Amino acid sequence: MIKLYGFSVSNYYNMVKLALLEKGLPFEEVPFYGGTTPEALAISPRGKVPVLHVEQGFINETSIILEYLEQNHNGTPLLPSDPFERAQVLALAREIELYIELPARACYAEAFFGMTLPDAIKEKTKAELLLGIAALGRHGKFSPYAAGDSLSVADLYFLYSVPLACGVAHKLFGIDLLAEMPKAKALLERLEQNPNVKRVAADKEAAMPAFMAMIAARR
Amino acid sequence: MIKLYGFSVSNYYNMVKLALLEKGLPFEEVPFYGGTTPEALAISPRGKVPVLHVEQGFINETSIILEYLEQNHNGTPLLPSDPFERAQVLALAREIELYIELPARACYAEAFFGMTLPDAIKEKTKAELLLGIAALGRHGKFSPYAAGDSLSVADLYFLYSVPLACGVAHKLFGIDLLAEMPKAKALLERLEQNPNVKRVAADKEAAMPAFMAMIAARR
Repeated sequence: MIKLYGFSVSNYYNMVKLALLEKGLPFEEVPFYGGTTPEALAISPRGKVPVLHVEQGFINETSIILEYLEQNHNGTPLLPSDPFERAQVLALAREIELYIELPARACYAEAFFGMTLPDAIKEKTKAELLLGIAALGRHGKFSPYAAGDSLSVADLYFLYSVPLACGVAHKLFGIDLLAEMPKAKALLERLEQNPNVKRVAADKEAAMPAFMAMIAARR
Repeated sequence: MIKLYGFSVSNYYNMVKLALLEKGLPFEEVPFYGGTTPEALAISPRGKVPVLHVEQGFINETSIILEYLEQNHNGTPLLPSDPFERAQVLALAREIELYIELPARACYAEAFFGMTLPDAIKEKTKAELLLGIAALGRHGKFSPYAAGDSLSVADLYFLYSVPLACGVAHKLFGIDLLAEMPKAKALLERLEQNPNVKRVAADKEAAMPAFMAMIAARR
């Protein structure tokens, strides 16, 4: 059986978990926090979460895992079969990762964990986030899903990256990133009603206290 | 015919260009610098380079273009056919992009274009680069190619991202990133002898003066 290594507070972990649930594939969750111990690095070359374990071994990097699942397992498809349309969905997902998730992530420590970051880091994040959100407004369809009329890999990134980026923008810059994107806000509300999304959110909530205690202990 | 939009100084552009040359696919180069004009954003949602134009329209994001070419065109394969092995190669490529290229890119302005960056940005880059290179040492095979015994998508990222990251590390931090990776150094030397790599490098050299003049004019 497929094993998913990671922890329920990780937004990348939750992208893959929701993909497995939506595709209807059986899987087992294995608690794994990544990091730089030899044991962790033997599972994940850069110590990152999530990692998928399949018969042949470990597969790392969320975007690679999602495409691997799509190409090699049955279940509800999360990508179009037409190659050009597929590329459009994947490009939208990649844009959310590179231009929204990653700039926002540089400020998670201050926005969510009470640390203080240098102004230079925050200024860079702010500038990049505004460009990234504008790109999402330009390329996203929200008709009603992020990339078209059905749930896709782009929605996984949208659901688990954009709200965190909104949290960063609100707390650090006093900006509502989705102020001019009512269809994107409506999609977030719709996705939050999805039973599998609710399950992932409940698992995250249950795991949060132990995670915050771990973060506090590391300081 | 496939049209490749971008410019010869862009390392991402050169990844796709080398892929097309190695696969033996005919293509036309279209000068395009990206940016934030309405015309550029109609071609590339985040104004980035390169973009591929095919019969159905534009495809953006280097990683998406490379996989699209692999799945939808003939020519020399740059990914294994076995799904698990394919995921390993793609994960290595993604690690080079996320953990080496992107941290290094945050310092290109100072390393290559004479600007001055805040210390906080440089410190973040340095810490991330050291972890990224360690991951490459762990996951890369260099036997003799980055991901195994034949040229793959991972080599495209290795060839066009790692030397720039080495330039950043050398100029800003006085570090030789590949000091303990002789097989990686040997692969770079071997790749530089590849006739298609030489062609891409010659095109880059020819385009550099106009590019530097453009950068200088923008300041």
